[in-house]
Amino acid sequence: MNRTIATLGRRLRLGVIGGGPGSFIGPVHRASARLDDNYEIVASVLSSNPDRSRAEGRALGIDPDRAYGSAAEMFEAEGSRSDGMEVVAIMTPNDGHYQLSVMALERKLDILCDKPLTTSLDEAMDLAARVKKAGIVFCQTFNYTGFPMVRQARAMVRDGDLGEVRMVHVEYVQGHNAALTEAEATGNWHFKPERVGASLILGDIGSHAHHMASFVSCQAFAKVSADVGTVVPGRNAHDYAGINFRLANGAPGALWVTQAGAGAVHGLHFRVFCERGGLEWFQETPNQLFHSRLGAPALTFERGGPGLKPEALRSQRIGIGHPEGYQEAFAVLYADVAEVIVARKLGRAVDPLALDFPTVEDGVRTMKFIAATVESSDKGGGWVDARVGV
Amino acid sequence: MNRTIATLGRRLRLGVIGGGPGSFIGPVHRASARLDDNYEIVASVLSSNPDRSRAEGRALGIDPDRAYGSAAEMFEAEGSRSDGMEVVAIMTPNDGHYQLSVMALERKLDILCDKPLTTSLDEAMDLAARVKKAGIVFCQTFNYTGFPMVRQARAMVRDGDLGEVRMVHVEYVQGHNAALTEAEATGNWHFKPERVGASLILGDIGSHAHHMASFVSCQAFAKVSADVGTVVPGRNAHDYAGINFRLANGAPGALWVTQAGAGAVHGLHFRVFCERGGLEWFQETPNQLFHSRLGAPALTFERGGPGLKPEALRSQRIGIGHPEGYQEAFAVLYADVAEVIVARKLGRAVDPLALDFPTVEDGVRTMKFIAATVESSDKGGGWVDARVGV
Amino acid sequence: MNRTIATLGRRLRLGVIGGGPGSFIGPVHRASARLDDNYEIVASVLSSNPDRSRAEGRALGIDPDRAYGSAAEMFEAEGSRSDGMEVVAIMTPNDGHYQLSVMALERKLDILCDKPLTTSLDEAMDLAARVKKAGIVFCQTFNYTGFPMVRQARAMVRDGDLGEVRMVHVEYVQGHNAALTEAEATGNWHFKPERVGASLILGDIGSHAHHMASFVSCQAFAKVSADVGTVVPGRNAHDYAGINFRLANGAPGALWVTQAGAGAVHGLHFRVFCERGGLEWFQETPNQLFHSRLGAPALTFERGGPGLKPEALRSQRIGIGHPEGYQEAFAVLYADVAEVIVARKLGRAVDPLALDFPTVEDGVRTMKFIAATVESSDKGGGWVDARVGV
Amino acid sequence: MNRTIATLGRRLRLGVIGGGPGSFIGPVHRASARLDDNYEIVASVLSSNPDRSRAEGRALGIDPDRAYGSAAEMFEAEGSRSDGMEVVAIMTPNDGHYQLSVMALERKLDILCDKPLTTSLDEAMDLAARVKKAGIVFCQTFNYTGFPMVRQARAMVRDGDLGEVRMVHVEYVQGHNAALTEAEATGNWHFKPERVGASLILGDIGSHAHHMASFVSCQAFAKVSADVGTVVPGRNAHDYAGINFRLANGAPGALWVTQAGAGAVHGLHFRVFCERGGLEWFQETPNQLFHSRLGAPALTFERGGPGLKPEALRSQRIGIGHPEGYQEAFAVLYADVAEVIVARKLGRAVDPLALDFPTVEDGVRTMKFIAATVESSDKGGGWVDARVGV
Repeated sequence: MNRTIATLGRRLRLGVIGGGPGSFIGPVHRASARLDDNYEIVASVLSSNPDRSRAEGRALGIDPDRAYGSAAEMFEAEGSRSDGMEVVAIMTPNDGHYQLSVMALERKLDILCDKPLTTSLDEAMDLAARVKKAGIVFCQTFNYTGFPMVRQARAMVRDGDLGEVRMVHVEYVQGHNAALTEAEATGNWHFKPERVGASLILGDIGSHAHHMASFVSCQAFAKVSADVGTVVPGRNAHDYAGINFRLANGAPGALWVTQAGAGAVHGLHFRVFCERGGLEWFQETPNQLFHSRLGAPALTFERGGPGLKPEALRSQRIGIGHPEGYQEAFAVLYADVAEVIVARKLGRAVDPLALDFPTVEDGVRTMKFIAATVESSDKGGGWVDARVGV
Repeated sequence: MNRTIATLGRRLRLGVIGGGPGSFIGPVHRASARLDDNYEIVASVLSSNPDRSRAEGRALGIDPDRAYGSAAEMFEAEGSRSDGMEVVAIMTPNDGHYQLSVMALERKLDILCDKPLTTSLDEAMDLAARVKKAGIVFCQTFNYTGFPMVRQARAMVRDGDLGEVRMVHVEYVQGHNAALTEAEATGNWHFKPERVGASLILGDIGSHAHHMASFVSCQAFAKVSADVGTVVPGRNAHDYAGINFRLANGAPGALWVTQAGAGAVHGLHFRVFCERGGLEWFQETPNQLFHSRLGAPALTFERGGPGLKPEALRSQRIGIGHPEGYQEAFAVLYADVAEVIVARKLGRAVDPLALDFPTVEDGVRTMKFIAATVESSDKGGGWVDARVGV
Repeated sequence: MNRTIATLGRRLRLGVIGGGPGSFIGPVHRASARLDDNYEIVASVLSSNPDRSRAEGRALGIDPDRAYGSAAEMFEAEGSRSDGMEVVAIMTPNDGHYQLSVMALERKLDILCDKPLTTSLDEAMDLAARVKKAGIVFCQTFNYTGFPMVRQARAMVRDGDLGEVRMVHVEYVQGHNAALTEAEATGNWHFKPERVGASLILGDIGSHAHHMASFVSCQAFAKVSADVGTVVPGRNAHDYAGINFRLANGAPGALWVTQAGAGAVHGLHFRVFCERGGLEWFQETPNQLFHSRLGAPALTFERGGPGLKPEALRSQRIGIGHPEGYQEAFAVLYADVAEVIVARKLGRAVDPLALDFPTVEDGVRTMKFIAATVESSDKGGGWVDARVGV
Repeated sequence: MNRTIATLGRRLRLGVIGGGPGSFIGPVHRASARLDDNYEIVASVLSSNPDRSRAEGRALGIDPDRAYGSAAEMFEAEGSRSDGMEVVAIMTPNDGHYQLSVMALERKLDILCDKPLTTSLDEAMDLAARVKKAGIVFCQTFNYTGFPMVRQARAMVRDGDLGEVRMVHVEYVQGHNAALTEAEATGNWHFKPERVGASLILGDIGSHAHHMASFVSCQAFAKVSADVGTVVPGRNAHDYAGINFRLANGAPGALWVTQAGAGAVHGLHFRVFCERGGLEWFQETPNQLFHSRLGAPALTFERGGPGLKPEALRSQRIGIGHPEGYQEAFAVLYADVAEVIVARKLGRAVDPLALDFPTVEDGVRTMKFIAATVESSDKGGGWVDARVGV
């Protein structure tokens, strides 16, 4: 459906931090903000180098006065404008997430922030407490949850259409780190533990796989038993993880994640089996959801087609057979956030379905998962509790 | 690659005609204009009802002064502004294309216009002559040519990688007209011959199939032998066409198009077989191109992956395994057009690869194809010449 | 289900003609006869060279006395034995089918014979009349009809589950003749018109495509409009056909067949669209049947899985997920034929479902289709009647 | 290629034990023996009930004198015949494998025996020692290794085409035990621990998954970390296992096996990633092998197509695009065994490629894997050594 929220009569004013030249995720965030016409990007910090940051902002068409040299400068200057930014999108390396989020929430700005939430569980829990206290909107961009057919899967499980969850399998198999690269040798931040946290693979794509497993099973992880390591000789970071887990209801599951599968593409793929059927989805062909059924032929749900739940219908913009992709799914989170913010500004009730984007709490659960997984692997594969606040 | 053309230092000023509420294609055009940040939508006509047109323009966030009530009003008012619109996007029913295009080109505006070009071959040829004389950019939005893997296929054939073209098969199998609907009964314009031209199915999706066959084989059609008709009882429009054809080099091909395939999704799919291999592509999973080879295992080209031609690389925005879809492909045409217009404004040479979007000449060829196909079917299936200007 | 027909207390005695060393189809027939243990191969003629024929028969383990040097010898010798052959399988080049079938039916032997039925329509009609008069079983081995999921499709259409047939598309796209080969130059019989009949491509795989279109739509062809030709330079035989057709009920369809698709595999694929849904099947992955539905998500029928008709169930031998293939499907015809013959020998009623194998009448219809298709193509694509006996 | 081994001038004489009415695997073994015409089934024991055993044997067409009532009877009677059976195929419930194999090898008969080898590791090791001493052929029917494209994968890895093995993932996801069934309640032997061994899921399909992981990676398992359990409430047997493992070279891997995936079909699927590429195969579509490559587009190897290794070529019987399935793969083991036995009987050297079928040693390794997996799961997921003889 149309995700342009026209009721405010203007676009939300967005500031972006990170995502400068060479960044993969920067253009994705900015196009996400533009796609449904709910945001205007009014301010930017695009590099840790102030001169470069300003130049890049101007090159993107940002008002030169608002193409800032640093986050501190941006927060201060924007805070003093009557038309200052209202929402901040944070897409820096992982080690910037915590501090920038704190700066934003102290100014009561709403936040969209990349995953993983922080580089440590302690920071993550502290940030969650601050977000709660500040009462702002905080969206952790587990962007794969924005795909309409992922929303369909979650809704089917949550509504009990398939009965109890019996088991889950999620895999995320990429190939771009299958060989040692120059970037790695010369210090791309992704390979620096102090910048990414406890585990490259877990922070980068293990976090997505974990959240997806929870999102579509509608359950938190209870415990993990893991083998995390490095398969490419000479690498100083994790590039592989095999993880057995149990969900809150006791159902078993497994995650298999790597970025070292030579020639692999992307390979985010889940299966959830319940009492009366299973659901299967592949990110590379995201417009279909396969539904195996006990004692009946399998169904294929098609985005735009018959049989979809409101959760799926509201997350799509175009008709059947016209494939939507990664960009559109990412923008669903921006649209959800805009819908919630606009409702608040107008004092209106928000559609509960708009609230199904990942939050800071989801970010905390993933940080706990990462810590537990590394601990299990380090201690020889035995089970480690993965529950938050237990 | 990044398709934002920053060299002009500002966005191109776009006016849109058509695509109001309930339109499928309106939001697609507007998001295409926004996606790469090359256009600002400054003026609109969104309905044939002036009041509704103005209200809808304002609701979209258009400056109230420029949310016009009619095209005539828009062309006049914008023409008198120093910051008036520079480019027009036409997405009205088919019977508006000719007149609106003429109005635009008389004001030297560049044009993006939906297919089919006009409702008659005569109008199409006249329009092509006028475009040529005016020297403007005219993009006929055969949008499926914007997919990177379609560009890859065309480049491989054009570069002779596979040798001579031996045969082509294109099909476009949809299901949304598999049953008589209320919309059809109550007068949706798609079912009115005076608004769509000689043949609903040929103007709507047959035109895409024809252009695709030409685009990827790098050849015009020479002749057609066709069976065009109606398979749903009670319908007063064509919903089926089976077409044998010969390309300029004599190679045979076949098109199979319908919108009456019960439960079918979208089904645009081509195969081109050449001397040393074949190429196959499915619009529903557009990020892969399959390449069968004589005497060697088949290859799968993956968007974002290794082995791509410059034509494909420049048409993609995101890395491997993150699926791009219909919206991104449509926006490739907008980006190409912007690149050409900006180069002209700056007096710079344009990258020849930017000129590979469909033009008014392509529109004419498709109108000729439609006329020849209907004639062949009407006269019992015999061959009819489909060449333009012969 | 188990297709071994134990009620006779012994195996049927089979003689084979053709299919010697280097033959593709010979081993297929013989394994088909063995697979369900209903036949014992007791006599053979394996080459037109008598010495070679005898040697090859002995090498296959045939009793040396019954490894004959010629068909005439075989028919005579076996006819004088009390334990002589009861059934004949004919797998010679096309031009042998008529005469050998006549020899067999004159001795009241039951026959399985490769397609196409003969090399001319006249011979075909004559043979059909003789078969009818002789009252024998004659199976024309359109072997793709033996796949359980093809039987499922036919049963669904015949039972009216999907409503009226609206359109059909069948394609058969192979690549093994994509380049001129030595075999072709040096005289492989497939490239000799006097041995294969009017058209290599139509006799070889066009015949399968035609029969399949009829089999799953449960309708005969009414007329054809065709483009038949040669795409590989230097070839003296047809390697391409694009055919529009109308079924008996007026529904349109198209066939696309070639053996010159460079790198293509096998590519037998059909779609039938009816009033309330469509059916799609690919021979290369034959264990699934896809069923699109009007207003409901698509279904996938899985061989061995739920929702199958008796026609499918009786044609399969093994459980879900254990793929059956070409060999098993071919053997279904042998099992059907054995079931009918055994019932006749025992004076029992035969299960009507066992009678759904292709017969001499189907062979005649295909010969008429071939003649009409060539005529249409020769005269410029106009419609030609394809009905038998009209 | 043709797998009929004609050099002996007669068929090998086979006796079958197990696989009576209602058995899934019995007809598969018998058709495997017939398919390539290398065996004649001369003797049978088809039930533990002597009368039923004799009746069933006769119903299958076995000579009434050789349709035995028990294995003891069969071994004795056949042993006293000059034309007695030479090879025994054992397809009883698991707890019969050890004793029957011992009886056979004491009479110097060659053996094909279903998996798992025995019901305990001790018995397995004892049996392996006896087989070695007896010098007979013993084939453990890990039948999925008979698929030509599995042989292709193994050959590519073994030949070092892809470099070092980096990781492996095998899954086997079935659905036929997704709900408690009557068979289970009323005592189907598969659900009785004393008949199947330590773990239903591991003995039944985990064994296949384990062997496949070793077969295609060309490496034994070094250790396992596992979660084995039951997901269907009320069941008294394992129906789920998630297993992390390390291969001999240290490469990690994961297995995911279940028979409780509601609506799942068969789902045997492996991926092996090496230094320069990966291999992926799906049992449900077994005629293709996907080969991802570092820095190059992916390849699809097609059974019957170009680029295959001798190991694959010798395991196929029919040309490209004619799908082979489960039955043909199973029969590859019978053909390999026949080739080895015939060479021995003739005193000829055997083609080393014929020796690549699974043996009693493979059976022992799987029994060790099962024991280690259960131990790891029981003790909380920690690593357990899975090496044999360490």
